[in-house]
This record gives sequence, C-alpha cells and structure tokens, in this order.
Amino acid sequence: MSGSVVIAGLGPGNDALVTPEVAAALDKATDIVGYIPYVARVAPRAGLTLHPSDNRVEIDRSRHALEMASEGKHVVVVSSGDPGVFAMAAAVLEAVEHGDPVWRDLDIKVLPGITAMLAAAAACGAPLGHDFCAINLSDNMKPWALIDKRLRLAAEADFAMAFYNPRSKSRPEGFGKALKALQEACGDARPMIFARNVSRPDQTIKIVPLTDVTEDMADMRTVVLLGNSQTRIIERDGAPLIYTPRSVDG
Amino acid sequence: MSGSVVIAGLGPGNDALVTPEVAAALDKATDIVGYIPYVARVAPRAGLTLHPSDNRVEIDRSRHALEMASEGKHVVVVSSGDPGVFAMAAAVLEAVEHGDPVWRDLDIKVLPGITAMLAAAAACGAPLGHDFCAINLSDNMKPWALIDKRLRLAAEADFAMAFYNPRSKSRPEGFGKALKALQEACGDARPMIFARNVSRPDQTIKIVPLTDVTEDMADMRTVVLLGNSQTRIIERDGAPLIYTPRSVDG
Repeated sequence: MSGSVVIAGLGPGNDALVTPEVAAALDKATDIVGYIPYVARVAPRAGLTLHPSDNRVEIDRSRHALEMASEGKHVVVVSSGDPGVFAMAAAVLEAVEHGDPVWRDLDIKVLPGITAMLAAAAACGAPLGHDFCAINLSDNMKPWALIDKRLRLAAEADFAMAFYNPRSKSRPEGFGKALKALQEACGDARPMIFARNVSRPDQTIKIVPLTDVTEDMADMRTVVLLGNSQTRIIERDGAPLIYTPRSVDG
Repeated sequence: MSGSVVIAGLGPGNDALVTPEVAAALDKATDIVGYIPYVARVAPRAGLTLHPSDNRVEIDRSRHALEMASEGKHVVVVSSGDPGVFAMAAAVLEAVEHGDPVWRDLDIKVLPGITAMLAAAAACGAPLGHDFCAINLSDNMKPWALIDKRLRLAAEADFAMAFYNPRSKSRPEGFGKALKALQEACGDARPMIFARNVSRPDQTIKIVPLTDVTEDMADMRTVVLLGNSQTRIIERDGAPLIYTPRSVDG
C-alpha cells in the first residue's frame, strides 16, 4: 500500500480555527511529524505515532516524513498557521526536490490553515484590507540587506505589511533594525499592531503609533502588522478598530 | 438585548475549509448578509433570515447589517475567503467610521477564513513560501498608475505575488496591462499559476511560464500567483509541485 504526506496547517492556536479538512487528515494519519508544541496539539490515539522534533531541523524532519511515507505510512506534517507561509510546506518540497527520486511519486498534499497575520488582522479589524505584503524578519535564511531592501520598497509601494518572526533570543537586534528602516521609510505615525499569542486565551493586541514603537515590543510569539499611509483607527469604548480603506483616490 | 455584527470568512468554496468558529457563528445568527452566491452557502433554518444582495453594494450592505444589529439582531456578514483580504471587513468598518455614532458601541467581530491565495498556493505546493505580497488588480477603487507602481516595486523587491480580481467583463484590459508590467519588470520565465474555482470540484490549476502568459488566461473566478526569481518546479508524473525556497544566498 502506498503512503502519503499531508502538510497541514493547524492555524494560530485555537482549535476552533482548525479546518474540518485538516481535522479529517489528522484522523486518518498513522504518523504525525512536527515541531514539539505543534505535535502536542494532536490528541494521542491507538494506531497513531507522534514524532515531535526540535525547532530548526525542518529538512531532517521533512526527510523523516518522506521516508516513512515511502514505507507506506500516512504521515501528517503539522505546521502552525498556514503551512505555505513561512512554515513546513516549502521545507518538505525542498527535501523532495533534492532527495530520493522515488519521493516524487508519493501522494503529497498541502492543506491550508489560518495564518497568524490574518488571525491578528481579524482580531483588531481589517488592517490588511488593501494591498499588503508579508515579510519574514528572520535573517537565518537570507541576508539582512535583502530584508532592509524589501522593507523600503514595501514602504514606497505603500503596502500594509505583516511581519513574521520579528525577534528571537538569538536575533535580539533584528526587530530594532527593521523598525529603524520602517520609521525612516514611512515617516509617519501609522499604527503598528503587536498581536501576541493570537487566538489563544492569553492573546494580547497592542496598537502603537510607528513613531513610538521600541524594539522590545516584539518577541517570537508576536506577529506584527503595520498599516499603510491611509490606515484608520476608529476610537470607541474598549479596543479601537483598525482598518485600511479599500479605496485610494486617484 | 444588544445586537452584534460578525464578519465571517467562508473560505474559497469547499465547506471543509470553513472553520468551526465561523460555523458556530452561522448557527447563532438571526440574519445573514452578503453577496448572493456567498449567502447561498448558508443553509436556511427557522429563525434565520437571509439577505442576499448584489455585487458592488458593499457599503449599503454594511449599513444594513449595522442597522439590524442596532435593533438587537445577531447579524453575520459573510465573505468569501478571508473577510480581511479584499472583502467585507474593511467595508463594514468604513461604514462604522462614517455612520451613526451608536454603531461604534456594537459588538463587532471579524472571524478569519482561508483566503483564496493560500488555498491556491496549497493546491500546487508552496509558491508563497518566501516573502510575498497580495495585490487587488481591480482599478475600481484605486488608480491604475498605483497598481502599475506596486507591480514594479514588488518585482524589484523579488516578492512572490498573489493577484485578486485579475480580470472582469467590465475591466477586460486590466490583466493584460498588469501582465505587460510584470513581464517587463521580472524579465524571466518564472511560473505564473492560474487557480480557478479553487477548492471546488471543478478546480483547475494551470502553471505557465511568465513569458508565455496571455491576458485571456485569467477571469474573475481565478486567483493568480507568481513565483519570485528563485521559485522551483518539481516535475513528476501528474501535476508538478511548485515551491519558493525559504532561503536566499547572501
């Protein structure tokens, strides 16, 4: 019997954001592969083997999943959010391209999930309601100069922006550098949104004018959004609503 | 009793992509508001009133939803995909900002959904696996010169790209103009992906080198993706897999 690899998005943390398609794939799996906290979200059951692994071993984890599938297992590789957004789908496909040619014949599927930026946007309104971009601020896999260039071009294009992996213990200075580039390139007080533990019970949303942001406001559990030059704040009792208008005058 | 407005994303079409959170909101609603084909996805039941409306009346529809909520109804505004991505969330918040001040005190929530570009990306691999942008190609709400500028800056930033509303009967020439700008600015044969009716039984995915794309390849039921300069195609029996690598050399 031939095996399969499904790369599935678990969404940002709340089980009410897991699609029925992903839940069904988890029910049919023989093996679950992924980063420890994501595998911990899958309930153990008879006939299911959990293979949690550490962070930063994406290619090893991918090869392990593909090897098990070529032995006939039905493997689900779990990602947080959407597997195609700074997550496991590209890693598995990189392993396929450079690995055993028989892996190309496996049944490989990617199942989308709710990615953190869209859950964060929903939690405060619609800050990504106009053209936008998503940038991974980690320079583990690309030179900082390219990140800096993208930030400045994105500001020039007047995109709303979403930033993944803004800051980690091993890269404490990255967010500060990005912030400096954005403050220079945008030159205004548009709102920056810090969504931490989005969709979880301990979710926090902070809205700060870009001119007042400091580098300690982000960590690895935060997704950061930035409005464009037109973004609006609707003040009211309780949390304000943020949105980026659909229209721009000509 | 005070009313509420929930702006909910139904995903791209397949009910297996509707989150449990959205399904629960539909179950609790007294009134459903939205574009005709999206309201048609909600099953009628006793106690639920459906208010389908035509396309291009987003602000009227939003005001209607807010008025009903201020009368105590529990209104769900349904969007295709994610409500925060070129959909109803920004329209409702625009109506709140410029409408009756009492609307600001309503219980207003946005519930994320699977947006078309991420379902399309998953259907062919991980073409948005690196930094990317999302651009609405309709010039109903912004000048074409701004779209053209964004396309050229996005190419310069080497973003992967997703294009919503590429072409309609009322704007038959828009996609051709965008294509010309992209062919000039990218200058290579990177893959462009045409995902039509994504996630539905009649889904089609076409992968075409950018140099060979013609303007008739897109319509309003298509979301279009474009790789960056590094995007890879894994050929194999059956449909190829496309991915954009996570890493770029320095």
